[in-house]
Amino acid sequence: MENKVRILGLVGSLRKGSYNRALMRAAVELSPENASIEVFDLTPIPPFNQDWEKDPPQIVKDLKAKIRTADALLIATPEYNYSIPGVLKNAIDAASRPYADKVFDGKPVAIMSASIGMLGGARAQYHLRQSFVFLNMHPINHPEVMLAHAKDNVDENGNLTNQETRKLIRGLLEELVRWTKKLQAVQ
Amino acid sequence: MENKVRILGLVGSLRKGSYNRALMRAAVELSPENASIEVFDLTPIPPFNQDWEKDPPQIVKDLKAKIRTADALLIATPEYNYSIPGVLKNAIDAASRPYADKVFDGKPVAIMSASIGMLGGARAQYHLRQSFVFLNMHPINHPEVMLAHAKDNVDENGNLTNQETRKLIRGLLEELVRWTKKLQAVQ
Amino acid sequence: MENKVRILGLVGSLRKGSYNRALMRAAVELSPENASIEVFDLTPIPPFNQDWEKDPPQIVKDLKAKIRTADALLIATPEYNYSIPGVLKNAIDAASRPYADKVFDGKPVAIMSASIGMLGGARAQYHLRQSFVFLNMHPINHPEVMLAHAKDNVDENGNLTNQETRKLIRGLLEELVRWTKKLQAVQ
Amino acid sequence: MENKVRILGLVGSLRKGSYNRALMRAAVELSPENASIEVFDLTPIPPFNQDWEKDPPQIVKDLKAKIRTADALLIATPEYNYSIPGVLKNAIDAASRPYADKVFDGKPVAIMSASIGMLGGARAQYHLRQSFVFLNMHPINHPEVMLAHAKDNVDENGNLTNQETRKLIRGLLEELVRWTKKLQAVQ
Repeated sequence: MENKVRILGLVGSLRKGSYNRALMRAAVELSPENASIEVFDLTPIPPFNQDWEKDPPQIVKDLKAKIRTADALLIATPEYNYSIPGVLKNAIDAASRPYADKVFDGKPVAIMSASIGMLGGARAQYHLRQSFVFLNMHPINHPEVMLAHAKDNVDENGNLTNQETRKLIRGLLEELVRWTKKLQAVQ
Repeated sequence: MENKVRILGLVGSLRKGSYNRALMRAAVELSPENASIEVFDLTPIPPFNQDWEKDPPQIVKDLKAKIRTADALLIATPEYNYSIPGVLKNAIDAASRPYADKVFDGKPVAIMSASIGMLGGARAQYHLRQSFVFLNMHPINHPEVMLAHAKDNVDENGNLTNQETRKLIRGLLEELVRWTKKLQAVQ
Repeated sequence: MENKVRILGLVGSLRKGSYNRALMRAAVELSPENASIEVFDLTPIPPFNQDWEKDPPQIVKDLKAKIRTADALLIATPEYNYSIPGVLKNAIDAASRPYADKVFDGKPVAIMSASIGMLGGARAQYHLRQSFVFLNMHPINHPEVMLAHAKDNVDENGNLTNQETRKLIRGLLEELVRWTKKLQAVQ
Repeated sequence: MENKVRILGLVGSLRKGSYNRALMRAAVELSPENASIEVFDLTPIPPFNQDWEKDPPQIVKDLKAKIRTADALLIATPEYNYSIPGVLKNAIDAASRPYADKVFDGKPVAIMSASIGMLGGARAQYHLRQSFVFLNMHPINHPEVMLAHAKDNVDENGNLTNQETRKLIRGLLEELVRWTKKLQAVQ
């Protein structure tokens, strides 16, 4: 029996009613049969201080362990001030240290973003991609999931109601699974 | 008598022996007569959660008040994972909300960076500049202070020993003061 | 009598029916009383070769002269392959050399973009802004004019029919004039 | 017998004594046994005009054919004005159209850059990577070849004399070959 592709989900907003949490919830619902998505809550990750990088708080150790055992990552993030939210970047920074641990090394990754504006979080996505170069992660290119005008596309219960975006998310997950298997294949 | 240009300094690393703290310390020493630099410690800024944006923790209120009364900002930052450190970005995010408060609006700003690698933090600087577009800040273009191989240029007491960089920092401060006065001038 | 602010317009697409030409045409129509816009056609600019930078083709000399005497620049550009079109970047490269000529140095600049996709050329704008750092140009931050779904907003005669974008362009020009006067003011 | 990986080389500077040509020449010398590098001269590529995209000049057709049959791309480029040189971006733009032709789709790619400054062309590389997202190309992450102070590292005959960079280029090529084979493998 084929093993499921284990995807670790990270959400870049701590807000309870976050539109990006809605994207992640939709992703969990839409997950293909041959994949499973576990979401790690970034709320308790403290501000990173390199002085403790070799013995970080337990929650950072937990995050690193989850990343290490995941086959792939899925990030749902808003755009704050035309870039990556500090809370998401801080979690990545904390998990990426010490450098020798390399928990992100070689991991496939996909990004989704939602914003209330017209660009749907695009600017955060391209900055994240630059971080992936250093971390030696392999992002998929397409589809790009960028939900603009999020207010009109998520209902009061935090459900993503935009059908086109739901289809895109399903496509994103299928591509992430395909890409992960390709990168894991022994030739 | 001419008023001094009040510069608020922010450091993007919490590490005690931070090379960027060394840059900021050098800036304070090298400050022109007609300017004063006050450094705000970002260590206690908690992870930003939009749910509390209208009534943030006191430390965030303090940061916002300091930014509001400053004539200009000076940022010294490392580059983490080829982008802005999460801790710095998080402080900017927290201070930038709610949007209507606009504490950064129209502020002149200068950036310095130091890294142990060969690029001197350049990648963090360009991402920061993109945030300044949204925040409607006005960064100076030159000189660009990017200290590469920081380990060889800061001594064990955290003093910046590279004389060329010290000159650049002095030039950066003079340009920031000139630029601030130009932007504040009533025509 | 007050002198008009002389704005030099550059269009980043050579296509006859270009949506960005439509933006520039609208800008000329909407130009404030105290400004004048002259558009320089980039079609004949040849591929830049640094071997001729000290004695470039006449058309490059002409472009450099126009930039030098302009008070401000206005760029209307599509986004090609998620970045600045080669033809626009090449014209900037050619005009920027030799470095000592510094024809762009200190110039205020505004950007508009149009695309058939949903992002309205945003990605080209942020890459352009990075070039402005090197060239020591001073871009205005807001408003950002990014016309998405350009096909539905420009008629068959190349007229911009989207009224909201026309208002934004008028606002962009007013801000560019205000910014130019501030930067030119003798204190 | 194993087929060689066919790599198409593009150089982003037209200057005869280009440092990036020197990088490409070194790459050809250092090419692994199981790869071959053919360099396509971008000098005759005319400024792209979308009006001729369906029937481009013969030289553009030739470039597109070479890209299509290549297994991977290798780009050596300077940084002009903190971004991709117009001549290189223009060649990419021309070859990328019409969109349906998708000659770049799925291609592995590696980048090298050289500059006379301290950053070694880094800023051009990150902008190129953003174009690769649209083009659905798969860049390798490491090693990053960025030759700073190129003047001191290339001799008067255009030979790359910096031994560390020669080793990096060899490593880049080996990684490109490995990555290409992985992406081409039928699972």
